Amino acid sequence: MLTKLAQYPTFQVFLALAAAVALVGLITPLFIRLLNHRQIGQQVRADGPAGHLQKQGTPTMGGVVILLVVALVFAGLTYFAAPDATNSSIAKLLNYTQSVRAAVLVLVTTLACGLLGMIDDLEKVAYERSLGLKARAKIIGQVLIAAVSAVVAINWVHVSPRLQLPATRVFLDLGLITTRLSVFGTTIQLPWLYLAFAVFMIVAVSNSVNLTDGLDGLAAGIVMIIMLLFAVVAYAQDSLPVSLLAGTIAGACIGFLWYNSHPADIFMGDTGSLGLGGAVAALAMVTKTELLLPLIGGVFVAEALSVIIQVLVYKRFKKRVFKMAPIHHHFEMLGWSETKVMIRFWIIAGSFVALGFVIFFFQLKRLG
Amino acid sequence: MLTKLAQYPTFQVFLALAAAVALVGLITPLFIRLLNHRQIGQQVRADGPAGHLQKQGTPTMGGVVILLVVALVFAGLTYFAAPDATNSSIAKLLNYTQSVRAAVLVLVTTLACGLLGMIDDLEKVAYERSLGLKARAKIIGQVLIAAVSAVVAINWVHVSPRLQLPATRVFLDLGLITTRLSVFGTTIQLPWLYLAFAVFMIVAVSNSVNLTDGLDGLAAGIVMIIMLLFAVVAYAQDSLPVSLLAGTIAGACIGFLWYNSHPADIFMGDTGSLGLGGAVAALAMVTKTELLLPLIGGVFVAEALSVIIQVLVYKRFKKRVFKMAPIHHHFEMLGWSETKVMIRFWIIAGSFVALGFVIFFFQLKRLG
Repeated sequence: MLTKLAQYPTFQVFLALAAAVALVGLITPLFIRLLNHRQIGQQVRADGPAGHLQKQGTPTMGGVVILLVVALVFAGLTYFAAPDATNSSIAKLLNYTQSVRAAVLVLVTTLACGLLGMIDDLEKVAYERSLGLKARAKIIGQVLIAAVSAVVAINWVHVSPRLQLPATRVFLDLGLITTRLSVFGTTIQLPWLYLAFAVFMIVAVSNSVNLTDGLDGLAAGIVMIIMLLFAVVAYAQDSLPVSLLAGTIAGACIGFLWYNSHPADIFMGDTGSLGLGGAVAALAMVTKTELLLPLIGGVFVAEALSVIIQVLVYKRFKKRVFKMAPIHHHFEMLGWSETKVMIRFWIIAGSFVALGFVIFFFQLKRLG
Repeated sequence: MLTKLAQYPTFQVFLALAAAVALVGLITPLFIRLLNHRQIGQQVRADGPAGHLQKQGTPTMGGVVILLVVALVFAGLTYFAAPDATNSSIAKLLNYTQSVRAAVLVLVTTLACGLLGMIDDLEKVAYERSLGLKARAKIIGQVLIAAVSAVVAINWVHVSPRLQLPATRVFLDLGLITTRLSVFGTTIQLPWLYLAFAVFMIVAVSNSVNLTDGLDGLAAGIVMIIMLLFAVVAYAQDSLPVSLLAGTIAGACIGFLWYNSHPADIFMGDTGSLGLGGAVAALAMVTKTELLLPLIGGVFVAEALSVIIQVLVYKRFKKRVFKMAPIHHHFEMLGWSETKVMIRFWIIAGSFVALGFVIFFFQLKRLG
C-alpha cells in the first residue's frame, strides 16, 4: 500500500510535512540540551513587557533545527520524488526542472536569510545584549541576499517580471526598463523595477516576521498557516517541488510549536524568523503571488506598520499610538494573555490566508 | 465579482466558515455578559487539578452560541446555495436532495445532543455542583437520540448498513439481520447490527468529546480540525450541503476559540461538547467513514480509554495508571502548561486527521 501511495503527489506533500514535524520534534530537545549545556540563552529586551523578563535565558536559535530539517527533508524527497525520466514527456520534465529550480531558489534564499540571522543571534550571545548585529550591517546583508535571489529568480527560474493584480486581468509590467548583460556568452536580464520591488519585498517580509516573533508560538503558527496556502497554490500550479518545500516548512513550524508554545522551551531566534520570512517572500516570488502577499501576510504588515507608526508619531507628536509596539505587545498590555494573543492572531492570519486562497482560485479558474 | 464567486462551491464553504467565525465572535461576548449578569458560572470538579479551581465561576454553556450560529448559518446558506431547479438535471437534483437530508440529519442530531447537554448544564447551575444530570438519565437520553438518528439515517438518508474497511475493498455487512416493518404503507428497515453499532458510536463519541473538554481550547480546537476534514471529505463525495455544515461547525469552533483559549472567558459546557460529539459521529455516519473515525478522532479515543483504564485498574489493583484521568490532566500533572497540552494535543489530532485524509483519498481514487 505504501508504494502505491507514494506515487500520489498529495501523499508526498503529506509525507514531507509529517517527516518535518517528526524530525523537528525529535531534534529540538537535543538542541535545547546542547544550548543549556553551553548556557546559550535569549537576552530579553529591557523595554519589553515586564512579564517577559522571565523569558531571560530561554534557549534560542531554534531556527537552526527548523532550517536544517527543511533542507534535509527537501533534499531527500526531491531525490525520491523525481519523475521517472524514461516514462515522462519532455514537456513534463522541463516543467519539473523549472519547479525544482524554483524550489531550490526558495530554499537557498531561506537558508541565506537564516544564516544572516544566525550571525545576529551569535553576536547577541557573545555580547549578552538583546540586539545583535549593527542595524546597518544587517540591512546591507539582507539587501545583498535579496538582490542575488531576485536576479537568480529572473534569469534561472525564469520568473516573469509582470505582476498580476489579484482577481483581475490587469498586469503591472515591471520589466519595461531592463538592462541586458552578456556574461560568458549568457545573457543576463536585469529588469530594474522588478528587482527593486523584489528586494523590498524580501527585506520587508524577513524583518516583519522578525518583529512578529516576540511572543510564544506567534510567528511559527502564522508562518505555518501561510505555508499550507503556498503548498496548495504551488500544487495547483503543477509545481510539486515547491509544494513539497512549502509543506516541509509548514511541518517544521508545527514540530517547533510543540516546544515553542507558552511557556516556550526554546525560541526560533533571528535564525528562524529572518529565514522563515525569506521563505515566505521567495515563495510569493516563484508562485507569482507577490501582490496577494500583503493580504496573506496581513499580520506581518500590521506588526511592521505598528512599529513604524509608533516611531513616526512619537518623533513628531511625542505621543504613543500603541501602548507598546509591535502590536502584539499592545494587546498584552490591554490584558490579553500571551496564549490569547497567539490564538487570536492565528485566527486573524487564518482569515487573511483563507481570503487569499479564495482570490487565488478565482483568478486561476476564471482568468487563467 | 462576489456574485461570480458565489457560484463556486468552495467559496460557499469558505463563506459558511467565515460567517460562523464572525457570528460566534460577535455573539459570544453578549452571551458572556448575559451569563455574568445572571451569575451563571461553571462549577469546577473538586478532585481536578488544583490550578483549575480558579476557573470556578467562569461562564459556561458557550455551546449554546455555537449551536445557534451553526443552525442559523446552515439554514441561510442552504437556502441561498440551492441549485437552480430549472437548470439542473434530475440526477443532480436527486443527489442534492439526498445531501440535504444527510446534512439535516447531522444538524438535528447535533442539536438534540446539545439540548441534552444543556439540560445537564442547567441542572449543574441550579444545584451548584460539578456533575449535572444523573448518569443514567443522561445515557438513556443519549441512546434514544442516537437510535432515532440511526434509524432515520438508514430509512430517510439511505445510508448503507455496510462498513468499508479503510483502504481495502473489504466490506463488513451489518445489514444481514434486518427487520422490515410497514408503517402507514412505508417500509421501515431496521438493520439491527448497524443500528447497535451506530448507537454505540454516537454515544461513545459524544461522551468522549465531553471528557476531552476539560482544558481551555482543547475540545474546540480538535473538533475544528476534524470538521475541516469532514468538509473536504463531503466535498469530494459531491455532498455540498454536508460540506457546508461541517465548514460551518469548524468556523463556529474557531470563533469560539477566540474566547475559549487560556485563560478561558467562557466554556462550551456539555451543551457544546455533547453537541459537537454528536456532530462528529453523525458526520462519520453520513459520509460512511465510520471505521476511519477511531483514527481521525484518536485523541477522543485516548481520552475515553484513559478514564476507563484508570477506573478499571484502580478497582482491581488499587493503583493509578495515570497521575490523573482524563489523560490531558495527566500531562498537566507532569508539568506541561495548559497551553502546551492544548497545542500538543492539537498537533497529535492534526496528525491523525492528516493520516485519515490520506487513507480516505487512497480509497476514493484507487478503490472506488
